[in-house]
Amino acid sequence: MSDEVFVSFQPIGKRIQIEKETNILEAARKAGIRISAVCGGESRCGSCRIKILEDNPPVSEPSPTEYELLDKVDLESGIRLACHTEILGNLEVTIPPESFSQSQRLQVEGHEVYYDLDPAIQIVDLRLDPDPHQTDLSLFDELAGLLQQKIGSKELFPEVEMLRKLPEMVRQFAGEIRVLIRKGWVIDIRLPLSPVLGCAVDVGTTKLAAYLVDLESGEILSKLGTMNPQISFGEDVMARIAYAGKQEDGLDLLHTVLVDSLNDLVSRLCEQANQERLKPNIELNPEQVIDAVIVGNTLMHHTALKLPVKQLGVAPYRASLTSAIDVKAKGLGIKVSPVADIHFMPNIAGFVGADHVSMLLTGDKLISTSTILFIDIGTNTEVSLTRGDLLISCSTASGPAFEGAHIGSGMRAVDGAIEKFFITEDGFKFLTVAQGKPSGICGSGILDILAQSIKHGIINRNGALNKEHPGVRIGDKGPELLIVKAEEAAHNRDIVMSRKDISEIQLAKGAIRAGIELLIKEVGIAANEIEQVVVAGAFGTYLDVNSAVTIGMFPDIDRSRFIQVGNAAGMGAITALLSIKQRENAIKMAKEVRYLELANHPDFSNEFTMAMMF
Amino acid sequence: MSDEVFVSFQPIGKRIQIEKETNILEAARKAGIRISAVCGGESRCGSCRIKILEDNPPVSEPSPTEYELLDKVDLESGIRLACHTEILGNLEVTIPPESFSQSQRLQVEGHEVYYDLDPAIQIVDLRLDPDPHQTDLSLFDELAGLLQQKIGSKELFPEVEMLRKLPEMVRQFAGEIRVLIRKGWVIDIRLPLSPVLGCAVDVGTTKLAAYLVDLESGEILSKLGTMNPQISFGEDVMARIAYAGKQEDGLDLLHTVLVDSLNDLVSRLCEQANQERLKPNIELNPEQVIDAVIVGNTLMHHTALKLPVKQLGVAPYRASLTSAIDVKAKGLGIKVSPVADIHFMPNIAGFVGADHVSMLLTGDKLISTSTILFIDIGTNTEVSLTRGDLLISCSTASGPAFEGAHIGSGMRAVDGAIEKFFITEDGFKFLTVAQGKPSGICGSGILDILAQSIKHGIINRNGALNKEHPGVRIGDKGPELLIVKAEEAAHNRDIVMSRKDISEIQLAKGAIRAGIELLIKEVGIAANEIEQVVVAGAFGTYLDVNSAVTIGMFPDIDRSRFIQVGNAAGMGAITALLSIKQRENAIKMAKEVRYLELANHPDFSNEFTMAMMF
Repeated sequence: MSDEVFVSFQPIGKRIQIEKETNILEAARKAGIRISAVCGGESRCGSCRIKILEDNPPVSEPSPTEYELLDKVDLESGIRLACHTEILGNLEVTIPPESFSQSQRLQVEGHEVYYDLDPAIQIVDLRLDPDPHQTDLSLFDELAGLLQQKIGSKELFPEVEMLRKLPEMVRQFAGEIRVLIRKGWVIDIRLPLSPVLGCAVDVGTTKLAAYLVDLESGEILSKLGTMNPQISFGEDVMARIAYAGKQEDGLDLLHTVLVDSLNDLVSRLCEQANQERLKPNIELNPEQVIDAVIVGNTLMHHTALKLPVKQLGVAPYRASLTSAIDVKAKGLGIKVSPVADIHFMPNIAGFVGADHVSMLLTGDKLISTSTILFIDIGTNTEVSLTRGDLLISCSTASGPAFEGAHIGSGMRAVDGAIEKFFITEDGFKFLTVAQGKPSGICGSGILDILAQSIKHGIINRNGALNKEHPGVRIGDKGPELLIVKAEEAAHNRDIVMSRKDISEIQLAKGAIRAGIELLIKEVGIAANEIEQVVVAGAFGTYLDVNSAVTIGMFPDIDRSRFIQVGNAAGMGAITALLSIKQRENAIKMAKEVRYLELANHPDFSNEFTMAMMF
Repeated sequence: MSDEVFVSFQPIGKRIQIEKETNILEAARKAGIRISAVCGGESRCGSCRIKILEDNPPVSEPSPTEYELLDKVDLESGIRLACHTEILGNLEVTIPPESFSQSQRLQVEGHEVYYDLDPAIQIVDLRLDPDPHQTDLSLFDELAGLLQQKIGSKELFPEVEMLRKLPEMVRQFAGEIRVLIRKGWVIDIRLPLSPVLGCAVDVGTTKLAAYLVDLESGEILSKLGTMNPQISFGEDVMARIAYAGKQEDGLDLLHTVLVDSLNDLVSRLCEQANQERLKPNIELNPEQVIDAVIVGNTLMHHTALKLPVKQLGVAPYRASLTSAIDVKAKGLGIKVSPVADIHFMPNIAGFVGADHVSMLLTGDKLISTSTILFIDIGTNTEVSLTRGDLLISCSTASGPAFEGAHIGSGMRAVDGAIEKFFITEDGFKFLTVAQGKPSGICGSGILDILAQSIKHGIINRNGALNKEHPGVRIGDKGPELLIVKAEEAAHNRDIVMSRKDISEIQLAKGAIRAGIELLIKEVGIAANEIEQVVVAGAFGTYLDVNSAVTIGMFPDIDRSRFIQVGNAAGMGAITALLSIKQRENAIKMAKEVRYLELANHPDFSNEFTMAMMF
């Protein structure tokens, strides 16, 4: 045991014993602490910043990468990269808030969508005769006969779990029971008035949004968001595919942390609904959840189902499965009713997933016009254009810059993030999330800073900073825009926007714009023929459309045609949870959609280069 | 720990620590040793005989029941009833061979039956293009397309387990794969030439018979029999229902020991087939078993599925389920392929199970005449009579007497059991199983003894023994027929047939005969209009038909019309394993059969009284 040392993590106060020379990122994982690691622990992103307070701590010397990715001031104040720092003795590590993979403003609200109420689960209340006439019938045949009389269904089949309850249920409550049927299968019997719940979950690369729904009334009982715990294995899709390929149990881990998080969400959704006493005298619990719909991009879909992901990471990026599938919740380790199914909505291709199909589903009801552009911004941005019967989709690798990653002072939309920015005669003005002391810039703030800087001539068409402007100074790595001085910032560090940061945004917005332009070309219309632009996703909801048009991320279309719908994928999942017909619609759309592969599209690099300009 | 004592069991040599005052039956169960307990530990049957060799052992004094059920000689030699003997100190217990619930001549052979080969699993060999043209298809859609081309099937659905293997399989062997399809579901992909196995199991109250079958060729690869391990919780159906009702985890235990035994059988079936090298160069294993058929009486069916059994034990003895059902093997804990289904054939009623339906299924092909009597003798005996379109069944509680239980010198058909008996001028002659030294009498021997005794005037019509006969002596409990003297017997105990034993047989054979007569009456024919009598079951196969007719168990029909088919239930299960059409036939028969309830039949007690006569 002489090679083992103790590490404690602050402010959590967790302490573990590990092998000497383990790096801090690995140690944190072992302690169950999720540190943000955009690159998947590949030592490339610089997002896993931690702090060591003591002088001459027993750790490895800073690496060349750390000298490159960290400021001198940072290094001097004890900031290190967790993935680069080996532990050589007993140590105390402090994790700054921005390095935690959690606690962030999340998007669970979507526009209200009208839906049909014809869920996959049919609820039938009936009374079994406790003293039946025909006793040579089996209990199930008697039940099936009554059901057929009542709902005129054809042949019914029994689920074993239901049969295990049947004799006891016949004896209770003078035979009053509530029967649940799915596609001709009698799957459950419950006491009269028992809640029949469903769950809709949007599994984003970064965030999960979950909804608890009453399948009887269609009412949304509670909503919750949380971070996707997979984030500690890589912030974007490619980093996670790489992680799954590198580690023997990589896929298992990606699957397990996600399922654990889903289980936690379902419990918390029930608790939340109980606290709000939406169903007085009835305690809701996960056992009552009998149906669920999960949407996500193709990687999320594959990891939720524990399907191999390697081939998603290499050309031609083929999915194992794109069609919709119903899977037993139990088989996936999801702790709801033992007879619950999970409906996974269909994917379109390796890089256009069920979350986008789900978004298109809400468009069905939301929009009455006929030429519609759908944009769902995330680490991958999916874009679809529909005109009449035609529906074309593509996916562009916009990266995590809008989540604040790869940006020097970038951060997620947590307390203290600059989310609005404008330049007045009095200088720079900004608003922060929850009015916190400024500690960095989140996606919508980044857009505003760029748009305002362009308008005021601080940044030119190519992204170069005007060194003459009083807000621009020359930093360690060239010119940078000083947004907030260290003394006014939460962490006593300057909040800046460097030329490198601007380049990152140029790449991201260029990718999105190139995708939009290629779809417009493909359909053969002019941009202003688009009658509605539906922008979804958390960032998509908070961004300022004017800023997005100013920096050239979106085409210059009349602002009134833009509609920011929030979590459209989540709303689509609810729609599918409540309606079999909508599930079929989604399947039909996913089949009919044409997928435009941008990677080898002859015009892509040209469009991309143009789209990077401001 | 002062209240804990050590018990060791001989000849096994197992030693455990248990609480003082535990009875020996309970202690044996805890040690994982299955002692025969016909009555389910209800202290009624006297079958759980054990021996304590030391003088003044630390155990409770013999109870009045033990004085009643055990001979004075037995008690003096240290024989006790395990369920009546409490352990008061460290102890060594010896279990006589006849008290073990195992090792018995078993019946896995049935008459050869012709069958159709159209199993539930469709096997398709094909080649996936390792460098396909259309790369925007998902891997599954590509596979489904090829399958549809090849076999012209309609829509195909993917099983998740199969999808988990798909990417790797595409890369291997240049895309050569073997695909398994069940009812439109692509459930598995395997390497080319992989064995595709099925299992058929007849779960008898006393015995299990299992068959390993190649689903590609229809060939039976191996066969095995073993005791039903549930026997240590009660030898007959009613004792086990009582056990499940009494113990909180009773049903769980009945289910678990059965599943453990099934898992063991499947492994051993594979080993046996491997030893016989039926498939050279290919190692068979349980993972290759993709389909199974289980038949058994309604209680076996319910315990295998872990369905509550309480209502099977009280009038009107209703089954929870009679219709056929397919259940995931995994969900039942059966360790075969994770995607295997178990097909449970339909039951007819609470006391006429799938084993009898299975027997009728073999009759379909076996018999060409039109009026057929089916008799399946077990602890419950099922009788069916078919004439033209009419099919009537009943069940009679014949009890375990023919298994040697409730009979003083009775035993199962293990080594040393008297299985044939005849009276010559030179006296009594007999044959024993495996030519062992005689240690008791098994079912067929009991029938012969009675038939021969009747013929030679030793027993009269009422069952009374002729005290004048030199073979008859007066024992402790009245007159008895001395078959083998102690000095010639294996355990140094007289082998006898007492008046009480004869009464037991009268009850058993009376029940069977009454069932037969009532069916004949119901159909409205004379006995000699029956063109074929099919006798199934292990005992049914070994019994001498002449003896059975002499004692009046069977009606006096021309002997040539009797056919002893062995394990017809097992053969029927194989038939259903190999043919979807036969499964449908069974479902049709189970639906159309008329069940005659004997319990409250107005003529039953009259018929029964008459049928008890010799």
